[in-house]
Amino acid sequence: MDRRRFMAGGAAGTVAATLAAPQLAHAQPRIRWRCPGSFPKSLDTLYGTQEHICRRVGEITEGAFQIQPFAPGEVVPALQVLDAAGQGSVECGYTAPYYYTGKDPSLAFGSCVPFGLNARQQFAWWHNGGGAQAMAPVFRDQGVHCLLAGNTGAQMGGWFRKEIRSVDDLRGLKFRIAGYAGDVLQKLGAVAQQLAGPDIYPALERGVVDGAEWVGPYDDEKLGFQRVAQYYYFPGWWEPGPSIAMVVNERAWEGLPAPFRAALETACHEGYIYMTGRYDAQNPPALRRLIASGTQLRQYPRDVIAACFRATQELYAELGARNARFKEIHAQWDRFRQDQQTWFRVVEDSFANSMAQVQPR
Amino acid sequence: MDRRRFMAGGAAGTVAATLAAPQLAHAQPRIRWRCPGSFPKSLDTLYGTQEHICRRVGEITEGAFQIQPFAPGEVVPALQVLDAAGQGSVECGYTAPYYYTGKDPSLAFGSCVPFGLNARQQFAWWHNGGGAQAMAPVFRDQGVHCLLAGNTGAQMGGWFRKEIRSVDDLRGLKFRIAGYAGDVLQKLGAVAQQLAGPDIYPALERGVVDGAEWVGPYDDEKLGFQRVAQYYYFPGWWEPGPSIAMVVNERAWEGLPAPFRAALETACHEGYIYMTGRYDAQNPPALRRLIASGTQLRQYPRDVIAACFRATQELYAELGARNARFKEIHAQWDRFRQDQQTWFRVVEDSFANSMAQVQPR
Repeated sequence: MDRRRFMAGGAAGTVAATLAAPQLAHAQPRIRWRCPGSFPKSLDTLYGTQEHICRRVGEITEGAFQIQPFAPGEVVPALQVLDAAGQGSVECGYTAPYYYTGKDPSLAFGSCVPFGLNARQQFAWWHNGGGAQAMAPVFRDQGVHCLLAGNTGAQMGGWFRKEIRSVDDLRGLKFRIAGYAGDVLQKLGAVAQQLAGPDIYPALERGVVDGAEWVGPYDDEKLGFQRVAQYYYFPGWWEPGPSIAMVVNERAWEGLPAPFRAALETACHEGYIYMTGRYDAQNPPALRRLIASGTQLRQYPRDVIAACFRATQELYAELGARNARFKEIHAQWDRFRQDQQTWFRVVEDSFANSMAQVQPR
Repeated sequence: MDRRRFMAGGAAGTVAATLAAPQLAHAQPRIRWRCPGSFPKSLDTLYGTQEHICRRVGEITEGAFQIQPFAPGEVVPALQVLDAAGQGSVECGYTAPYYYTGKDPSLAFGSCVPFGLNARQQFAWWHNGGGAQAMAPVFRDQGVHCLLAGNTGAQMGGWFRKEIRSVDDLRGLKFRIAGYAGDVLQKLGAVAQQLAGPDIYPALERGVVDGAEWVGPYDDEKLGFQRVAQYYYFPGWWEPGPSIAMVVNERAWEGLPAPFRAALETACHEGYIYMTGRYDAQNPPALRRLIASGTQLRQYPRDVIAACFRATQELYAELGARNARFKEIHAQWDRFRQDQQTWFRVVEDSFANSMAQVQPR
């Protein structure tokens, strides 16, 4: 589809009115957008934030800018949201950029990479550490402008039918996983698969995969993983702070009046922290319920973490050797990450570890 | 001043026009508010976020709702912002609620209390853990509606001229500190003082105080503490995640058209995470500069932390015995806090500690 067409009132976008009497405050055209997403309606965390952002934009603009959220399959399939927004068959979409590393490896930095940044550091990198500037050409190549619009916080390390006692236990394991962690696990002998949220449980139940990760207790409980796998691992070293993005068709973004652009940006940034808030409040009681119903919590052994870290650094070197832009972004990002991790150790982790000493649980 | 007066166009608030043609998109009256704050213009983190929020509201509403930021002393003194907003001499203010615990002890939960929540947990408590509902009557008693509108992240544990090797070293120490940490330190023999940001350096230089805390490397460096004190401590157990608030005069809030209310809310919530982003990006290089110029980084000894934790619990019991509402809010907040700290230990701290193992610095 011609990207310009919908801006002129094509099938996807509707500029219903362009009345603007300059002496009146805030007279803006009515604009309607469609926003398909990658996350099922059953997840009030992920889909709930998509809805929240769309509702907020409507509230702020008094209905002059309306964005309608859609669940996977209603307009486009879960893992084709970026394509649809880039091609202009919809104006925007709500998805995780690391689903699309097949198109461009650098897209991973738009969500999260293994042993990377936590939720707060990711926002800091993007807005104050050169991330948005570094990533703009990457998203432009996909035909979109990217706004950070959610973050799950650090995720759990997945569900397994058998315990992972050593690196050997990863060999031959069929595991559902998103992003580059799959490639890391493949280096250690596992077989990685990427499946959309709703497809994971059936695959786990039928034995198509031996293990799977999704997000954390609250979402995972809803998807039912605890019924088919007993061991629940932490930390989720591959997803310390995956951000979710609002990807906006580039021409739609450029054509958007400045106040609506500001409204969408602020709503997305509010969504970023609203999502961590929802997860933080809901995960602890969900984890208690899971444990009460038989889930066994396990920490990855140190040597497994160390092997995964080494394999991750190998992967970054390989990706960088094949793709100069990935190498450049990774180098810039990695300097920021090392600074963040050193600083958080001084100020955040030292407090958390002090609390663990004075109030052990 | 009569709180209603400015809503009708008094000295403080100006409703310049009320034209609203219903067939036009987003026709809203032009509203101008004044927003004094507690933080000096030299701090682009704190004052910068106040400015950012005001600018955003203007952008989103296409200038129909304008909020003008002021530095301390321009309209009201730094530590009288809540009073001014509550009394209606200004429509809103940008401040830290724990500056005002003399008026009501529960106001502390609007920023942070010792051994409390981190930045993300504070937002989660407020919006998803019952915090906003619990705190609404507390702020209503002050004549304001409170929006979370910034957070510094965990702070450092302050500057000292002498090392703190044991609890004994706190005896007789004159220390600038905000919030309830001052009362905790007084229990251990220190003499606590609350001073606004710009007043700290002169007090430290003249020996009016022996030590002082403000925020962290980036702000502290600007205020010049490293020139008069050598030892820089962590963790800042009294401020693991202090939030900054936009306090809005209650009648001004109620009289605000719904789209402007939504605009102000989203801008404040964006400000919350913009502020952590600014601090996170600026603090690591500032800490490096401080260390390069002679600052000695020190960790509080375990027994000092443990003594402070015990004194904090005593203080909460005393405050609760004197004030039933404090007791009730503290109990609700403390259940949430314990859940959060347990959950973060599993999912966030375990990742941070894994990183410290695979990549020690």
